[in-house]
Amino acid sequence: MDTAGLEILGEEECLRLLADVPVGRIVYIDRALPAIQPVNFVVHGQSVVIRTAARSRLAIAATGTVVAFEVDEFNDNCVRHGWSVVAVGRAGQVTDDQELASVRQRGLRPWAPGTREYYLRVDIEIISGRRLRHADAPAGP
Amino acid sequence: MDTAGLEILGEEECLRLLADVPVGRIVYIDRALPAIQPVNFVVHGQSVVIRTAARSRLAIAATGTVVAFEVDEFNDNCVRHGWSVVAVGRAGQVTDDQELASVRQRGLRPWAPGTREYYLRVDIEIISGRRLRHADAPAGP
Repeated sequence: MDTAGLEILGEEECLRLLADVPVGRIVYIDRALPAIQPVNFVVHGQSVVIRTAARSRLAIAATGTVVAFEVDEFNDNCVRHGWSVVAVGRAGQVTDDQELASVRQRGLRPWAPGTREYYLRVDIEIISGRRLRHADAPAGP
Repeated sequence: MDTAGLEILGEEECLRLLADVPVGRIVYIDRALPAIQPVNFVVHGQSVVIRTAARSRLAIAATGTVVAFEVDEFNDNCVRHGWSVVAVGRAGQVTDDQELASVRQRGLRPWAPGTREYYLRVDIEIISGRRLRHADAPAGP
């Protein structure tokens, strides 16, 4: 348990949960202000890979900086029951041809229309997670 | 539509969506790094109010700074269908007795055990939202 009374998740479980959800949120600093954007992604080795447009705010502001990447799941019927995982690491463009081919094979389909051929990779340096499970919440996975 | 092909939501709809979900994510800068934490909250006037502990990282790092507050909803069966809303504004502690009484009446129940008598208010200065609805996605609200 942490100081807030939440269950601390181990690294292995954090990585498992991260790989198990389709949508995450990338958190970065854009012009000195905190910014957040929901994205779909794939876990590729020890990295999270996102597909975006080269001229997007995300690509411009996040590339070369340390970002956070968050996933969570809360029970619709009981918000006092859920978990969240946050990975922190440096974000960089995938430029290596072999790596690009490998990432493309993972079938990362961009959400929005338009050319989105910028692959942003977040190398996970720290990953941490918490689970909230109240006595009045149903038992879950 | 924005440059990424997503539908831009109007301010009124953003506020309606914000008030309609139980869980959001507060995004702040903690020791020069982007940080994110899922929280429950209430919308109180033109503000979002979160209950936390006075000694939490959130209270310490976010108070007096500009933060982002994000809510979203993606269809479990079709991640290419959903919406997200981001509010940006300055965060400050609620200290006024009348305001505290009013916020407490809203029944903001803290998630985690322990003393959590620090009410952090984010005054919404900018709110924006996007909806993603693909041709192959089912029609939704």
